[in-house]
Amino acid sequence: MKLQPNAAGRLVPTEINGNKQTPFKGVNKFRPSGSKAKPPVRTCIDFPRDGNKVVKNLKEALKKAGIKNGMTISTHHHLRNGDAVTNLLFDTIKAMGIKNIRWFPSASFPVHEHLIKYLDDGTIHHIEGSMNGPLGKYTSEGKMKGIGVLRSHGGRYAAVQDGEVHIDIAVIAAPASDPFGNANGVSGKSASGLIGFALADSEYADKVIVVTDNLVPFPCIPWQIQGNNVDYVVQVDSLGDASKIVSGTTEVTKSPDRLLIAEYVAQFIEDAGIMRDGFSFQAGAGGTNLAFVLFLKERMKAKGVKARFVRGGSTKYLVQMLEEGLTDYILDGQTFDLEGVRSMRENPGHVNTSPFTSYNFHGKGNFASIVDTAVLGATEVDLNYNANVVTHSDGYLLHGIGGWQNCLYSKCTILAIPAFRDRIPVIVDDVTTLCGPGELIDVIITERGVCINPIRKDLIKALKKSTLPVRKIEDVKKEVDEICGGAPAKPRVNKNKVVAVIKWVDGTVLDSVFQVRKS
Amino acid sequence: MKLQPNAAGRLVPTEINGNKQTPFKGVNKFRPSGSKAKPPVRTCIDFPRDGNKVVKNLKEALKKAGIKNGMTISTHHHLRNGDAVTNLLFDTIKAMGIKNIRWFPSASFPVHEHLIKYLDDGTIHHIEGSMNGPLGKYTSEGKMKGIGVLRSHGGRYAAVQDGEVHIDIAVIAAPASDPFGNANGVSGKSASGLIGFALADSEYADKVIVVTDNLVPFPCIPWQIQGNNVDYVVQVDSLGDASKIVSGTTEVTKSPDRLLIAEYVAQFIEDAGIMRDGFSFQAGAGGTNLAFVLFLKERMKAKGVKARFVRGGSTKYLVQMLEEGLTDYILDGQTFDLEGVRSMRENPGHVNTSPFTSYNFHGKGNFASIVDTAVLGATEVDLNYNANVVTHSDGYLLHGIGGWQNCLYSKCTILAIPAFRDRIPVIVDDVTTLCGPGELIDVIITERGVCINPIRKDLIKALKKSTLPVRKIEDVKKEVDEICGGAPAKPRVNKNKVVAVIKWVDGTVLDSVFQVRKS
Repeated sequence: MKLQPNAAGRLVPTEINGNKQTPFKGVNKFRPSGSKAKPPVRTCIDFPRDGNKVVKNLKEALKKAGIKNGMTISTHHHLRNGDAVTNLLFDTIKAMGIKNIRWFPSASFPVHEHLIKYLDDGTIHHIEGSMNGPLGKYTSEGKMKGIGVLRSHGGRYAAVQDGEVHIDIAVIAAPASDPFGNANGVSGKSASGLIGFALADSEYADKVIVVTDNLVPFPCIPWQIQGNNVDYVVQVDSLGDASKIVSGTTEVTKSPDRLLIAEYVAQFIEDAGIMRDGFSFQAGAGGTNLAFVLFLKERMKAKGVKARFVRGGSTKYLVQMLEEGLTDYILDGQTFDLEGVRSMRENPGHVNTSPFTSYNFHGKGNFASIVDTAVLGATEVDLNYNANVVTHSDGYLLHGIGGWQNCLYSKCTILAIPAFRDRIPVIVDDVTTLCGPGELIDVIITERGVCINPIRKDLIKALKKSTLPVRKIEDVKKEVDEICGGAPAKPRVNKNKVVAVIKWVDGTVLDSVFQVRKS
Repeated sequence: MKLQPNAAGRLVPTEINGNKQTPFKGVNKFRPSGSKAKPPVRTCIDFPRDGNKVVKNLKEALKKAGIKNGMTISTHHHLRNGDAVTNLLFDTIKAMGIKNIRWFPSASFPVHEHLIKYLDDGTIHHIEGSMNGPLGKYTSEGKMKGIGVLRSHGGRYAAVQDGEVHIDIAVIAAPASDPFGNANGVSGKSASGLIGFALADSEYADKVIVVTDNLVPFPCIPWQIQGNNVDYVVQVDSLGDASKIVSGTTEVTKSPDRLLIAEYVAQFIEDAGIMRDGFSFQAGAGGTNLAFVLFLKERMKAKGVKARFVRGGSTKYLVQMLEEGLTDYILDGQTFDLEGVRSMRENPGHVNTSPFTSYNFHGKGNFASIVDTAVLGATEVDLNYNANVVTHSDGYLLHGIGGWQNCLYSKCTILAIPAFRDRIPVIVDDVTTLCGPGELIDVIITERGVCINPIRKDLIKALKKSTLPVRKIEDVKKEVDEICGGAPAKPRVNKNKVVAVIKWVDGTVLDSVFQVRKS
């Protein structure tokens, strides 16, 4: 495999799984050419006039869809760790004797450990999509036949739209669907909130199969997925384990350090002048992020400030803000708890979004860059504000990118992270894997201080009079290294074997993940 | 111009405005090949990061969009006869010295008589879209430089999707928009209800300009048009005359004959067994159609029957049904009165649809064929149940097709029409212009009787015991001809000059409209 350094100085392959690649050119430097993918024109002649597209079972749907060896089959992570459909899908594919599938999930979860045997036996050739937990470990150890490709949610949409990834068959698990294929995630026993991650697939895949455990009479409202793009509908008893699809409740952190970080973040947003009437923010669902929302809410109330919109992943804390009138809208990309699902069903101000609206970098703008501030996490950051979200300092690939790269385009991107985890420093000289270029990361907030990227002179100036502990990142790093007994050991990896690559939002190759050598 | 007979025996041109054509092959006989249109891949690099796409005025937007002679520019009829935007658009184009535009409206109205001078002076080369009233008369008289092309709403979507019509610049008048271009029709002083007719344009046009008189802060909810497809936003003082955009109220007919027709229709739907729990229907906004809804409603109440959905064009009468619980949903394509607009804003069960979901024949099915019964009008019908909606018996082209052709795919299509108008029989030997093949028209209901298409043996059987005056169409025709003093005179047309063509839902040419010779 030929590796060459990209604009970030990272060694990346020029070809992946037989496809030529463009190395990362720098932020906003690569300009796509060409046209969008062009699915075949269909005709109503070939579809049932009464709109009933229900077929007997998944096997029949796959057969009718013309499944063949080597095809690309996509699934989506709306069912999270409760997903039974993807496992059933590959059990079925295995039983049909089909081989060498490129599996193109929007994300994978520990529940998909079930699929390792199909990676072993050649049913699945490789995965393009985030590999959380067991599949990440498997990939890291060099066991997967092809090279994994990790994309952000927006990058995944763009890859499909641009024709970089052609999906032969999309299998969309839907908590509610009608016989025509109109589908949503807001109702039924497997309600997940929304199913927008399947949007690109429904628009561009050759064949689209909706799988549901809640078939409702036409019309299924809202039609988050439009039946006009669907070929077949399959009814199953259960999409999976509801308790693992969404949390019953999401809870804030109880750790004093994390609470301190959350308080710092809230104060930063106020002191920097971001928290003003009509502002917007995005926060993830980690315990620290949830806590920051509570602190920010108190500050908003005290100052009489109202947000125009907040971006989900939604939780009960965002729903409370909406229902208390502290924001006009939640623009939600995925719903993390039952209150979020209820709110999406009931509140007209709780609006479902998709990677197309929110994150697609190859569109006429997207919502991510309109957000005033995004509060995100990271596994590592370095002195140049570069950040990593997919690997740990031991080199293991254990997380996906999600919307993280896309959110970096917010007007003020804050990484809210502990200075160390399990006595391993989080601030390093050089990140193990580059997922986010430092020029897009504005602030790093740890329990030991607030570090502002030197390129954000405006923020440095705005914080001059703040009581926050604004510090140089080098100083924080030095202190943390002393506490932890030095910088973390370099990961033991085989630099000749790329097991996965990290794509940037524009489809270029940002970094490589290398095989971990077992000690 | 070369004309050849199509499968319906109608003489149609093999080439229109320089483009080769496929003659109509019969219902469900033409199978499209090839792929959908493929717009260029865009990049966020080229769009403002803060999402603000507002430019100074329409002229600047057109300039930035690269307007040139001979381009195709689209507009939409959501503002109906109150539309000031299209006239402003062509005033601007004229002032810029641009020539030979193909104007591609979703429909035109009498207010667009203003544009005749631009057809005269070569600013506009020809119109593809319905030509209601003055523009129809102008076209009929052979004054337009090119040949007009009339498509159904679904046919228009398909033509854009299939790449048959490439739109260079789409100009979308939006009663509400944010600076990013998210837009809807439900709010603001020019509220029209919804703006779904612009959907194809927003997806496939090279450049998309949103014009609004109601700029709201991001996000504009609901985003019936998605800002991610929009290039520029233009603010104007007023989109037009609100009183002509939607009616204050829509009123049922007071004519005893029309009321009788409406009663017959309602009774037919009950007697034929169509009116059962969970059924669906579609009705237009004409006075007869509105009356039929009231009669049907009484029958539903009396029998304790509830509809699953009704299709709009919505009016206060459908809204009452929704709000009284007589239907679960209104699936609305356009809103005809203020109550409809209010309901669409307030009722989650009042759902906006588009020509993509409802009518696109080149998709994986559409909603029109799922509807149990559609009650429509016509200017003429003939003994073979063929029908005309665009020309009058004098040959003048005075109406558009709208969704009429698409609705013919309902499970039971009823034409509710008077037997004669102004002493001119409506039932003729042979329609002046063929818009709907008889095999898709199931029932013709006039004040003089109910005629069931002989191919619908099931309906004839179901009506055996009905008290309705079921009659042969030939008998009704004979009676009417006697009353009116004979069949209408043949139109005086120049059979060598085609002024417009009627496309079928699959893009083939169904019929020609010929130049009317002045007497």
